[in-house]
Amino acid sequence: MRVLKKTNFREARDALLAETGITGVEKVDISEVFGRVLSTDIRAAMMIPHYDRSPFDGYALRSADVANASEEHPVTLRVLYEIKAGDEAGAPVGAGEAVKILTGAPIPAGADCVQKYEDTVFDARSVTLKAPLRSGQNIVRAGEDVKAGRLLAGRGTIADVAVTGMLASQGMKTVDVYKKLRLAVISTGNELTEVGDHLSGSSIYNTNRYMLTAELQRCGFEAFYAGLAGDDAEETCELIAGCLDNYDGVIITGGVSAGDYDVVPEAMEKAGVSIRCHGVKMKPGMACAYGFKNGKPCIALSGNPASAMTNFYCIAGPLLRKYAGEENYLPEIIRVKMTGDFAKGAKGERLIRGRMVIADGVVTMEPPADQGNAVISSMAGANLMVIVPPEHGPVHAGDVLDGFMI
Amino acid sequence: MRVLKKTNFREARDALLAETGITGVEKVDISEVFGRVLSTDIRAAMMIPHYDRSPFDGYALRSADVANASEEHPVTLRVLYEIKAGDEAGAPVGAGEAVKILTGAPIPAGADCVQKYEDTVFDARSVTLKAPLRSGQNIVRAGEDVKAGRLLAGRGTIADVAVTGMLASQGMKTVDVYKKLRLAVISTGNELTEVGDHLSGSSIYNTNRYMLTAELQRCGFEAFYAGLAGDDAEETCELIAGCLDNYDGVIITGGVSAGDYDVVPEAMEKAGVSIRCHGVKMKPGMACAYGFKNGKPCIALSGNPASAMTNFYCIAGPLLRKYAGEENYLPEIIRVKMTGDFAKGAKGERLIRGRMVIADGVVTMEPPADQGNAVISSMAGANLMVIVPPEHGPVHAGDVLDGFMI
Repeated sequence: MRVLKKTNFREARDALLAETGITGVEKVDISEVFGRVLSTDIRAAMMIPHYDRSPFDGYALRSADVANASEEHPVTLRVLYEIKAGDEAGAPVGAGEAVKILTGAPIPAGADCVQKYEDTVFDARSVTLKAPLRSGQNIVRAGEDVKAGRLLAGRGTIADVAVTGMLASQGMKTVDVYKKLRLAVISTGNELTEVGDHLSGSSIYNTNRYMLTAELQRCGFEAFYAGLAGDDAEETCELIAGCLDNYDGVIITGGVSAGDYDVVPEAMEKAGVSIRCHGVKMKPGMACAYGFKNGKPCIALSGNPASAMTNFYCIAGPLLRKYAGEENYLPEIIRVKMTGDFAKGAKGERLIRGRMVIADGVVTMEPPADQGNAVISSMAGANLMVIVPPEHGPVHAGDVLDGFMI
Repeated sequence: MRVLKKTNFREARDALLAETGITGVEKVDISEVFGRVLSTDIRAAMMIPHYDRSPFDGYALRSADVANASEEHPVTLRVLYEIKAGDEAGAPVGAGEAVKILTGAPIPAGADCVQKYEDTVFDARSVTLKAPLRSGQNIVRAGEDVKAGRLLAGRGTIADVAVTGMLASQGMKTVDVYKKLRLAVISTGNELTEVGDHLSGSSIYNTNRYMLTAELQRCGFEAFYAGLAGDDAEETCELIAGCLDNYDGVIITGGVSAGDYDVVPEAMEKAGVSIRCHGVKMKPGMACAYGFKNGKPCIALSGNPASAMTNFYCIAGPLLRKYAGEENYLPEIIRVKMTGDFAKGAKGERLIRGRMVIADGVVTMEPPADQGNAVISSMAGANLMVIVPPEHGPVHAGDVLDGFMI
């Protein structure tokens, strides 16, 4: 099979997605379902509400009895009993009778409407109405919220707060979900020092380890730091191979450019990974290698934090979301109005990250001043990537470009 | 002190916020900081990068040596040694000399520019250049990303992926954060049945328990389900008092309207809670009670899931975010163009929930058909609340209203 080299990121992404499968399934308790990806369509086993109910506290009665009720001709009904939410309905309501009913209680047989208690005069044994009611007035019908058999949430949906509530309202104790991805993170580079250790010479602290594990957690995955490999192909290969045995996939940073010490692609191949994509035509984020071993993705990103994260948002993110079973794994493309200039163009696509600002209902972004490969300070608070097309040249305030939320 | 009754939600919210303090602080390992609220301003202890570095693989040299270099008059320099990222710089570069330099390596003394290896002719001992370079060309200056002393992230910021990376890049092993809120959730109502149990009569499944704990988790808090109280003031009071002893706050659903079995406000007072707000003028979400005991919030919301969640997004959410130490606890108000009609007005404010759709760069929302108090099916995927002002009447497609992301 052809290895993609320096295509645009969409071509690389789509080719990789075509080779990406889905991990396994498991059952979780309803208390654990929030944030998980549903592995089956879920249809309503019962309607909600499952009986005709009162929307407030009042009196259930027969509309025929009050058809002519008015200020001048009030109608007084005998109160049979009281019914509250959770109760079974009691004896049917006959002519001249009413039942005191509380919010959520079932409408007793015979009654066909409910009057709010505020709009009645009542004592313990009787209630007086001074206005007529329509048949069916103030009754919440069974199935008004959810009809039985209705699709509540489709396979591949992430259970949000409302979906979690809907599953609970159906009494579901366990839910079928896709397994949470368990991903290993490997750092490479002789120059890296772990936080807490003393920094000497031109060493730098290992930043990607923490950024990537945070990003993977944000995506709903479990991330495990597997360690720091130097710029040694053999050591890196062993670490990759071990992680591919024990986790659902591996993400490596550093050592993926074309330099003398960029040993990661070689180490991936030695570990049995079939590389499918090596480098993409985008800035930042050009340096990368993607491959699979036994269906498990092995992803190598740049050692430059901003490059690594840009490539992740464009390619690795969608790939891993699909792998995790999500149906909507591709970001939605939106139009973004730029409110500032950005001087740098690029031969391929350039990605500019920043914060979405909604100004008078319009989506805008002010490009941060500094967007260098290694610059992470401009990424804080960023939630939007804007795509500058190839050969576009400098961006000017007022330009409208495609972008996507990250 | 005056108890607010049926004010608009902003008045209630702002009065409650004025009484809301902040929980304690703790130190966490950098690997735990993602998603936590920083409890101090964090300034850069060192600049990033902390030395002048090369942005790519190439040769560090003296620009004076190649001032007249051209295709016709190439200049050949002697290569002294190789330096890579993590190394200490070696001997200074003298006239006629160069150093092979790899990405991220420090610029050796004497050199004042770097040429990409692709733009040179080289062997192990010499390098030939055919074009001049400016002094300073292709050198990433120390502090170019972050100057020492610069504010990296302010107190009250949630550590996102980039902030997590910035703290790591400074070598921070531990970070000061506000304690995660530990909140108890209590359900009330005789009609509630726990999922997994058999549903009889007009009982319904306990939905709010799962929706609320999910929402609290989404906010970054820890949520603990404390149990189900019937419609009994004494039992509810004991449960509230116990939770206020053991958690940072309590959220109760059900029993907060004005009906005969709405015992929660009475139970709150018996448990020592000073009620500060009872009911707000909004639909849905009118029924609520907010109070404090020893600075700990005690929040009672409607038993109707959609009412409870609407009130939560408008009042409880901002209150708890402030309590958790967040600086930006109020949602940003944005303009939203409605793309459909919504028939119901309200005397007070009406809140319509739905999904934000960005159409040609403009923020829009299609109001879901059904927005009843108990209707949670329309909430799935919702990420936006739109505020219909009092006395506004029916909403029409094309209306532009204020809203906020949830």
